[in-house]
Amino acid sequence: MSTPSHYTRIVLNERPEGDIQPSTFRQERVAFDLAPHAGEVLVKVDWLSLDPAMRGWLRDVRSYIPPVKIGAVMRAGGLATVVRAGQGSTLVPGDVVSCSPGWTEYAVLKAKEVEKINVPPGAQVLDFLGPLGMTGLTAYFGLLDVGKVKAGETLVVSGAAGAVGSVVCQIGKKLGAKVVAIAGTDEKCRWLETDLNVDKAINYKSPTFHAEFKKAVGYFDVFFDNVGGDMLNFALTRMNKNARVVLCGAIADYNSTQPKGLVSYMNLISQRAKIEGFIVFDYAARYPEALKEMASWIADGSFQRKFTVVEGLQKAPEALPMLFNGGNTGKLVVHVSGRDAKL
Amino acid sequence: MSTPSHYTRIVLNERPEGDIQPSTFRQERVAFDLAPHAGEVLVKVDWLSLDPAMRGWLRDVRSYIPPVKIGAVMRAGGLATVVRAGQGSTLVPGDVVSCSPGWTEYAVLKAKEVEKINVPPGAQVLDFLGPLGMTGLTAYFGLLDVGKVKAGETLVVSGAAGAVGSVVCQIGKKLGAKVVAIAGTDEKCRWLETDLNVDKAINYKSPTFHAEFKKAVGYFDVFFDNVGGDMLNFALTRMNKNARVVLCGAIADYNSTQPKGLVSYMNLISQRAKIEGFIVFDYAARYPEALKEMASWIADGSFQRKFTVVEGLQKAPEALPMLFNGGNTGKLVVHVSGRDAKL
Repeated sequence: MSTPSHYTRIVLNERPEGDIQPSTFRQERVAFDLAPHAGEVLVKVDWLSLDPAMRGWLRDVRSYIPPVKIGAVMRAGGLATVVRAGQGSTLVPGDVVSCSPGWTEYAVLKAKEVEKINVPPGAQVLDFLGPLGMTGLTAYFGLLDVGKVKAGETLVVSGAAGAVGSVVCQIGKKLGAKVVAIAGTDEKCRWLETDLNVDKAINYKSPTFHAEFKKAVGYFDVFFDNVGGDMLNFALTRMNKNARVVLCGAIADYNSTQPKGLVSYMNLISQRAKIEGFIVFDYAARYPEALKEMASWIADGSFQRKFTVVEGLQKAPEALPMLFNGGNTGKLVVHVSGRDAKL
Repeated sequence: MSTPSHYTRIVLNERPEGDIQPSTFRQERVAFDLAPHAGEVLVKVDWLSLDPAMRGWLRDVRSYIPPVKIGAVMRAGGLATVVRAGQGSTLVPGDVVSCSPGWTEYAVLKAKEVEKINVPPGAQVLDFLGPLGMTGLTAYFGLLDVGKVKAGETLVVSGAAGAVGSVVCQIGKKLGAKVVAIAGTDEKCRWLETDLNVDKAINYKSPTFHAEFKKAVGYFDVFFDNVGGDMLNFALTRMNKNARVVLCGAIADYNSTQPKGLVSYMNLISQRAKIEGFIVFDYAARYPEALKEMASWIADGSFQRKFTVVEGLQKAPEALPMLFNGGNTGKLVVHVSGRDAKL
């Protein structure tokens, strides 16, 4: 596979205070000088994943992962094709791999940090950014291990039309829970009810949202929260005894310089309930069991996936805010190069 | 035992909006017409327990227990002496019992809802409102079952000089945790360090409280919270990975019409941490194991107890707010009648 004389990458230019700005990232066109040493591989990036967590990586605060440095390529998971493998790697040119290349057309990565993709029956490569990737694993372990949802329980999912939310809704139904989905447009709600078969989808922008929530949910056992803010605070008033609130994300607050606080937290005492955060990386040793189950659902045709595709690496910076303003349905990805997916 | 022609009781006069007011409760002097039927006992109240949870019982909201009705005797746990037992009870006049008589000099109670007290070696009757009563059980199950504190971990206790807090501090030390106690006066801090042997006590009213907290605690594994509000919010910025925040009470917010919110909740995600509430009644089946262990600590002389005693039933309404403004150290009790305790 030939390589070009120059390639494009996008670096962090400055840390945003609130919303991501045009000046947050900077595109660089640089001479091609990438070569894999022993234990490394050179890859050409095909697809990149855009995730709400990326907003957190821009903050210079104590977290589960160091912040992206100013001037460094923006961190991102993705799918790529091996161009050349250094000594000691079993990968060969043309292998498609799951990896964390960042916002770049080409990258040299440690061979042990890329994983060759074997597409299971009924799936496609792009599913490795969806249910068969971090998105699916986050939904799976968050709902089963943190939320411990059981058949017959009531599960509420916020950000339900998003990448993780839409997987959570479907796993919830498979486990026999009553699933109420919360999303931000009527179109998303229709998709959730019609294609994902949730019991009820509610548009949180409706002026009667609280009344609709009370009617559809009553009180919940598990709240899988991707949103935070006001909605989470309201949810704390609608908990069943021993309710579990799974904190997966807080897209309503990621961009806030002054997040809204949870004033209803005292209900956690009277309902013996809990709010618990988690990071999917902690479950790495158990990824195989989750992926096996997800693959079986894909194979039997019962698992829906939807992708919102942004064309071209240079569009990544302006696409990222879609995650916080409701612009995407399903998984938001950037198509950098290579063949199209079947969408 | 003779009974008087009249007795005194204190009823809920009106629901307070914020702080408890002189008009919140009303004292009644009523003709004595109490007689135990089959399965009941007539008791004379000796001691009453004052607890922060009582503020919650005045609110007409969904909770773990119905609110006290307007005009009803204020609910309260206490210790009493049996005056007369109805048919079918094994209790006899003179038996000292643990019960929930409410704010009254005399009460007729269901025999199955009172428990005869057998004072273990080294203990006294009043300990049944402290470490051998709901106070001790709350500390025990909150710290061990919800907090799951382990030897070598860092435990922070807010409201540490209060009834539950002072028991939590001592159990924490016995389990081998590093214990940092938070209280509201230098005198309480001295007591916590000198008598309860906590590793460090910090006065939250100090202008350098946050700096002192960071120096003494670093990051904590378990936060046993009796206070809520700003302190809880600050604590959420000082969690170790997998930290557990035990929500026992929220004395800073019980009287608030506009509680302060937790704006730092997003740290729960990055630290894979949780906030969990509990109600001690859920552990009723396991009370004996806890009481056996507490009694053994009392017997070996290693367990400190302190009581703040208010003399006379009529003082209960004005004493209750002490729990929210730092007026008591250790367990706050009302001495209604009977012999004094060894304090």
